[in-house]
Amino acid sequence: MGSREELEKIVGATAVDERPVRDLWPLAIMQERAGNVPPQVLVVRPAGREQVAALLRWATSNRVAVTPMGGGSGVCGALAPAAGELVMDMGAFDRVFEIDETNLTCKCEAGVNGYALEQQLNSRGLTLGHYPSSLPGTTVGGLIATRSSGQESSRYGSIEDMVLGLAVVLADGTFAAPRPGPRSAAGPALHQLFLGAEGGLGVVVGAVLRLHRLPETTFGRGYAFRELRAGLECMRSVMQAGIRPLVMRLYDAEDTLFSGYDVHDGECALVIATAGLHDVAEAESRAVERFAGEARQLGEEPWQRWQKHRFDLSAERLKAFLAPPGSYLDTIELAGSWTVLADLHARVKPAIAVGGLALCHFSHAYEQGCCAYFTFGGSGGDEAEARAAYGRAWEGAMSAALELGATISHHHGVGQARARWVADELGGWMNVWRAVKNGIDPERIMNPRAVGGSQ
Amino acid sequence: MGSREELEKIVGATAVDERPVRDLWPLAIMQERAGNVPPQVLVVRPAGREQVAALLRWATSNRVAVTPMGGGSGVCGALAPAAGELVMDMGAFDRVFEIDETNLTCKCEAGVNGYALEQQLNSRGLTLGHYPSSLPGTTVGGLIATRSSGQESSRYGSIEDMVLGLAVVLADGTFAAPRPGPRSAAGPALHQLFLGAEGGLGVVVGAVLRLHRLPETTFGRGYAFRELRAGLECMRSVMQAGIRPLVMRLYDAEDTLFSGYDVHDGECALVIATAGLHDVAEAESRAVERFAGEARQLGEEPWQRWQKHRFDLSAERLKAFLAPPGSYLDTIELAGSWTVLADLHARVKPAIAVGGLALCHFSHAYEQGCCAYFTFGGSGGDEAEARAAYGRAWEGAMSAALELGATISHHHGVGQARARWVADELGGWMNVWRAVKNGIDPERIMNPRAVGGSQ
Repeated sequence: MGSREELEKIVGATAVDERPVRDLWPLAIMQERAGNVPPQVLVVRPAGREQVAALLRWATSNRVAVTPMGGGSGVCGALAPAAGELVMDMGAFDRVFEIDETNLTCKCEAGVNGYALEQQLNSRGLTLGHYPSSLPGTTVGGLIATRSSGQESSRYGSIEDMVLGLAVVLADGTFAAPRPGPRSAAGPALHQLFLGAEGGLGVVVGAVLRLHRLPETTFGRGYAFRELRAGLECMRSVMQAGIRPLVMRLYDAEDTLFSGYDVHDGECALVIATAGLHDVAEAESRAVERFAGEARQLGEEPWQRWQKHRFDLSAERLKAFLAPPGSYLDTIELAGSWTVLADLHARVKPAIAVGGLALCHFSHAYEQGCCAYFTFGGSGGDEAEARAAYGRAWEGAMSAALELGATISHHHGVGQARARWVADELGGWMNVWRAVKNGIDPERIMNPRAVGGSQ
Repeated sequence: MGSREELEKIVGATAVDERPVRDLWPLAIMQERAGNVPPQVLVVRPAGREQVAALLRWATSNRVAVTPMGGGSGVCGALAPAAGELVMDMGAFDRVFEIDETNLTCKCEAGVNGYALEQQLNSRGLTLGHYPSSLPGTTVGGLIATRSSGQESSRYGSIEDMVLGLAVVLADGTFAAPRPGPRSAAGPALHQLFLGAEGGLGVVVGAVLRLHRLPETTFGRGYAFRELRAGLECMRSVMQAGIRPLVMRLYDAEDTLFSGYDVHDGECALVIATAGLHDVAEAESRAVERFAGEARQLGEEPWQRWQKHRFDLSAERLKAFLAPPGSYLDTIELAGSWTVLADLHARVKPAIAVGGLALCHFSHAYEQGCCAYFTFGGSGGDEAEARAAYGRAWEGAMSAALELGATISHHHGVGQARARWVADELGGWMNVWRAVKNGIDPERIMNPRAVGGSQ
């Protein structure tokens, strides 16, 4: 009996497909455009955790690598099965079991769409507060596996702050259910291992998520800074005063222009919103105004503009930009302490300015520092030239991050894109990762491209 | 050459001692009082991570179990070396390397005293915000290994929210240094494994901690509720409105009386403080007043009283109470969703009322639920009777937690105290713990009593 027939016996004939599979890693899109089409692989769509377990046992017996798939909207090439490997499409795990409006938790399956879930919550006056710009194309499981972070992270945190418990099927087919909350000291928070494991340890089949009530009021404002550094200082003051803004984004001069904010030449736009109980959010908004100091007040318009365009960096737009031969485009999200951000910006901007486009904005702020989100793109004379320029931009950005003590990824993950640099950031923690991987997936059947695929 | 001589060659003769070692697990204190004195064990005090690594390699070669020791103020019997085992006293790791007042981070060694560090930070207008009542007797490494949480956790989070990076020596003697921050998606946050591992995976030698600026203003108030449930509803409303109170503690009627709050018979005292920028904290304090509804306002006095007594539950007081033969005393900190807390209270109170004393307060609140902190004590006719009553109280509390879906420990940990119940809470995650332990400590030289000591 062939593999396909065996898999059909486990999940049924209609739940097995054969097709090329890849995520939205720009380099893979460029390579495909140049004729390097991904191989056909078997894609199974299990219904229920018993089928997931049976598939993993089958994969172990047959020594076949398995990569779980959510929305496929990752941008690092973690989902890129080679010929003979298996993809586990989690789309049938699409149930929202419970939205608990008293305890503010949501129990759902891994295949639930991120945007649909947020809308369902919003209709009840609730929010998960997780808004990656890719949200419409994501699943809960994918948001977990990629260690995602969203536009409202300064208020609600990143995915690790939102997951109260996880349901996973381990490589050996055993099951672990979500543990009780709201917080436990019965050993380490082991589910944290799966946040950023990129499918390398097991299959996330469900989650218990922390919810919040939608804020009573939101005060959104824009400010224009003549100097990037002054804008960064304002952000630092806001965070270190104990304010958790709903949104806070500072655009460098080029990104301000590109994003269409109506400012004077060379100014940097800051879009900031405070939220919560009316009087609290208002007091915070007044404090922000003080911290903005000499900056020019732009009123509410930039906030309204940003809200209209918050999901514009869509998969469709990326694919459209990358359609013409020789074109390249990517984003690189670094993060560092407040004191390295200006230097990081100064070093990475010229390094990624290999084509026409080189933008940066600062979002995802902490009391300790912030993410610097770079966008670059251009067009080479031919595909080889495009790949070379693209590679130089990445090399420059990664080198700058490592040399300045910044992190090589704030929230996109590792996959293949950062395979060359991940050990430089992890250092001795690479041994811990290998030991954990060996302990949990000793037969090494889970995604061979997770976290750089290092052995 | 004997073990002691070999160890002296590694750390020097003055850094090796032989003595009985145990933490403050009340049952162990009771057993010692009854004549069951802990064995003499070798205690080494390494200076520097090379010595830690050499000691772990020695332990591996000689198949000797090693338990790292901080302040020894744990209450679960995780630090209880058997004859022939080795204790690694981290007291010489006492340096604060850097307090970065711009990026709000602190880099220090594991043996630094928790209270001394907080005072040093306070003198610069900063805080870690970590206030377990045991703080004066703790070390940074111990606070990490036990998965601690403090009195200001509703604002600043628990230890997992405070640790930006860790320096650890693994069982095989290799070293992993703190990774860059403020947040990274380069794989999972592997340092989280050590928060609550109770010395079972390796030795924490240092940490990079997240700091905060001390709040500009604090508004502390007291309220008296006629019903416990009404007080819990007030706490829930506060958290779910997005307020993060600096302190919020609700005492049941017995604990209110015991703690000396000046209220009417049967009332439950709520002590609550909002903090931050003046206008923000004031707006939050007014909101709290609204959420308190019909509760009687007690003004600032309860807040002042609580501040005076916040470290009263000291090691000395515990030891004094447990000095008389036949006495017993312990605390059990469960946590659950808001909707189970009243039931949890109703079930655990009679279960622990085996002697005279049975108290409960609710602190460490989340949007999803809260910790219920129980204290019980009494005196048996003889030691056997005392141990039996003590055991019944634990059995009752643990059963209630597991049956109601609450966690068996909010922040004290597992050690030996919860060894019988930890697998019931962890379920399938026990396999993950075993796999991680096997992967990172394959020779099983690290603390055999960590996380219940399960194999």
